[in-house]
This record gives sequence, C-alpha cells and structure tokens, in this order.
Amino acid sequence: MTAFGRLYGVGIGPGDPELLTVKATRVIAASPVIAFFAKAGRRGNARSIVDCWLKRSHVELPLYYPMTNESHFDDPPYRDALARFYKESTIAIAAHLEAGRDVALLSEGDPLLYGSFMHLFVRLRDHFDVSIVPGVSSICGAWGAAAMPMTWGDDAMVVLPATLPLDELTRRLALADAAVIMKIGRNFSRAKAALVAAGMAERAIYVERATMAGEIVTPLSQKQGEAAPYFSLILAPGRGRRP
Amino acid sequence: MTAFGRLYGVGIGPGDPELLTVKATRVIAASPVIAFFAKAGRRGNARSIVDCWLKRSHVELPLYYPMTNESHFDDPPYRDALARFYKESTIAIAAHLEAGRDVALLSEGDPLLYGSFMHLFVRLRDHFDVSIVPGVSSICGAWGAAAMPMTWGDDAMVVLPATLPLDELTRRLALADAAVIMKIGRNFSRAKAALVAAGMAERAIYVERATMAGEIVTPLSQKQGEAAPYFSLILAPGRGRRP
Repeated sequence: MTAFGRLYGVGIGPGDPELLTVKATRVIAASPVIAFFAKAGRRGNARSIVDCWLKRSHVELPLYYPMTNESHFDDPPYRDALARFYKESTIAIAAHLEAGRDVALLSEGDPLLYGSFMHLFVRLRDHFDVSIVPGVSSICGAWGAAAMPMTWGDDAMVVLPATLPLDELTRRLALADAAVIMKIGRNFSRAKAALVAAGMAERAIYVERATMAGEIVTPLSQKQGEAAPYFSLILAPGRGRRP
Repeated sequence: MTAFGRLYGVGIGPGDPELLTVKATRVIAASPVIAFFAKAGRRGNARSIVDCWLKRSHVELPLYYPMTNESHFDDPPYRDALARFYKESTIAIAAHLEAGRDVALLSEGDPLLYGSFMHLFVRLRDHFDVSIVPGVSSICGAWGAAAMPMTWGDDAMVVLPATLPLDELTRRLALADAAVIMKIGRNFSRAKAALVAAGMAERAIYVERATMAGEIVTPLSQKQGEAAPYFSLILAPGRGRRP
C-alpha cells in the first residue's frame, strides 16, 4: 500500500522570485507536483514567479479559473461555476496525493490571507496531511516597495477589500490609524472617496505590481486616472508614538 | 573617496530560520556588518534566528535596549532613555555606513510592521541609501502555525495592539470579520474580554512562539492561566463568502 502524499500550501510572496522563503524553495524542489491557479489561456502570475525554481522533472498542474471576471459573486451561475471549479481542482490534486505524490499548491503572497488556496485546503484537510508554508504577503511587499513604515506603537490597522460599500469602508477607516485597501480594480474611486472621507487620503500611497517588473508607487493624490488592476493596493500609514 | 555603504532593513520572518527569504539570506551574506536589537545581557531572538546564516567574517553590532520592561512609554524617563538609545544606535550604524560598509539591520517578522527598525530607518534615510527586504510577518507565521484561513472574500481584518484600552479594542473588533491582537503580554485578560464582548472569543486561537521551538497553538477558550509572553498573539478568523 502506498502512503498518501502531503499537500503543501506554499506562499510564494508578492512577486519577486527572491522573496520566496528558503522553505518554499525547498518544498517546491522536493515536491513532484506543482499546482497553481491561472486565468484560462494564461500562464498565470504564480507560475511565472516560481519559474526559476522549477525543474524539468516537475509535473505541472494548472488550475484554470472558469471565468476571468472579478466580481459577480452574488450571481448564482458564477458561484456555481466557481464551486464546480474548486471541486474539480480538489479531485485533480487528490488524485496525485492518493498516488503518493506530494503536491505544492502555490499561493501568491501568503496562503491564508484572501488566497484561493484556502478553498481547496478546507476541502482536502480532512483527508490528507497538509502543511502551510507562510509567505511574504502582498501587503508587506507593497509597503516595502514604498519604504513606508506602516504601524508604530499602539497603532490599529485595518485591511479592507475595496469591494465593500462606501459607508462600510469609511466607518472602518474612521477607527483606524493605518489602513490597507486591497482588491482595488474597478473600485478605485470608491476606495479613494472613503479615504478622503476618513481624512487619510493625503498620506495614502497607491501601489501596483509591488516587487515586480512595472512596479508603480505613487502618492494617491498624484495617481492619474481611475484605472487600476485587481491586485493593486492603497496604503495609509499609521503615525503612532515614537520617541 | 569612499562611497557610503547601504543600509538594509531585513525582515527575518517569524522565527524558523528557513522562513527567511532567499533575498534576506543573500543580503545578509553580502553585508559585512549585521546589526540587531537585543535585551541587555541576552543574545536576542533576531540574532538566534539568523545563526545558521552568519559567517565568521561578519561584524556583529548588537543594539541593546536600555531596559527590558515593556510598557512605560508614557513615563518620561523611559521615553528619554529610548530616544537616547535610538540616537546612539543610529550613530553606531552611521559610522559603518560612512566607512563604506553595508549594514544589514535585522527585523523579526517584517521590518515595517511595528518594528524597532523603523525608528532607525527614519533617522538614517535622509543621509544614506536604504533598501527594505520585506519578510514573513509574525502574524502570517502565527496563522500558518494554526493552519487557519484568516480572511475570505470581502472580510475586513483588524490588527490591534492589546495595549489599547478595553473599549477601544471592543469597538474596533465589532467592525471586523477577522482580527489579530498583538503584544499580548500582560494584557491577556483585557484582550480576551474584548473578544468576548465582540462575540469573537469562541473562534479565537492563542498562538505563542509560532514556527519556533516551544510553539503553542490552542483555542483561546482552552488556554490555561493569564500569563503570556509579549510576542504572543490571538487570532480570530474571518468567515466570509466561499462557494
């Protein structure tokens, strides 16, 4: 009887291939199967980040999202397609694990912070051994790229998806010293309006493609236009105590 | 004329030496001077984490905190001693940089999230070139150790120091789906009371020394006693949308 393989949820950091942890590179090297999410027809950002860490002997298991559009979660056909996608992805990974092969499932940033990895993790963890390899989150990558200290002393920080309604964003920002607004995409103008309402816009920084080619770091007030990719961020630093 | 050295703010992750990034190990190897904070009379946790990454040729520059007590910031003598300590540390690092030697200043977790590094960074950045090497934050290390998905979909997350008053903790938790309470130390009972008031205590997890020897991960409800080290955390996961 073959022992089952182990699933690794591997955080691969914000984009720079050197920002994988030593542990992530070791786990990837030792895992015969490398699984990753990608948009249909694309190589995918996760796969590109680890390119220099893969060997020809690796079996690649791309998991293609059923659609490329970002925000129709309340739309039943979209939700059903996503559920089906996670189920099929779970089956594809389970087949390798049952055959005794370890699988490294890549996750941009950290695996447990808004990661697609989590949807497969909760479906597989009762049946297989799973190890988490934490990663440098995209938010740490962003404020690192901006060289901006985020929280000092007793600062309270909020991490908010820009997909929330304006009033919900604003009242959460009002109770925060430091803020990260994620998933900007089509929600740029709403995120900016919330920061203005909370009095945080003047110190806010817009960051796009942190640690990758084409990185953009600019004061929010100087950002041109409202177009922003889904994985851009806005950061407002804390100003807490410091001697 | 000798060119000045460069200061690197190097995130060294939550504790496991394998959770340094590849970039952090490269920068440490290439920097002749390794600076780190430590309690007086101790080797220091940061220094211990990088032990396997140091060479005999490294010059070590320990920066000893003036006192070991955690929370007397409102006490003027303490604040003055801390300001003097940061000034003296700045001078010690500047001397190496002026002599043309690169300095890697270690920071547990990520350098820009509640890090002592930031106090020296703001004093040195106008005079020297500085690069930030982001790291796996202690909070990612903690929820990784707990194998606990933290945020899903539109979840809003707060990161709060347990040093805040009870009512301030509670009203911030009330607007959050997921929460991290840091700097537990002597503030354990207050942090727990705030989580109970916000209805988050039942799903909360207590984590101590994540990814290090002596790691403890336990449901908050099962934690024995109120003693907790300063660098312990409590996590309450989000429960957002998932297909």
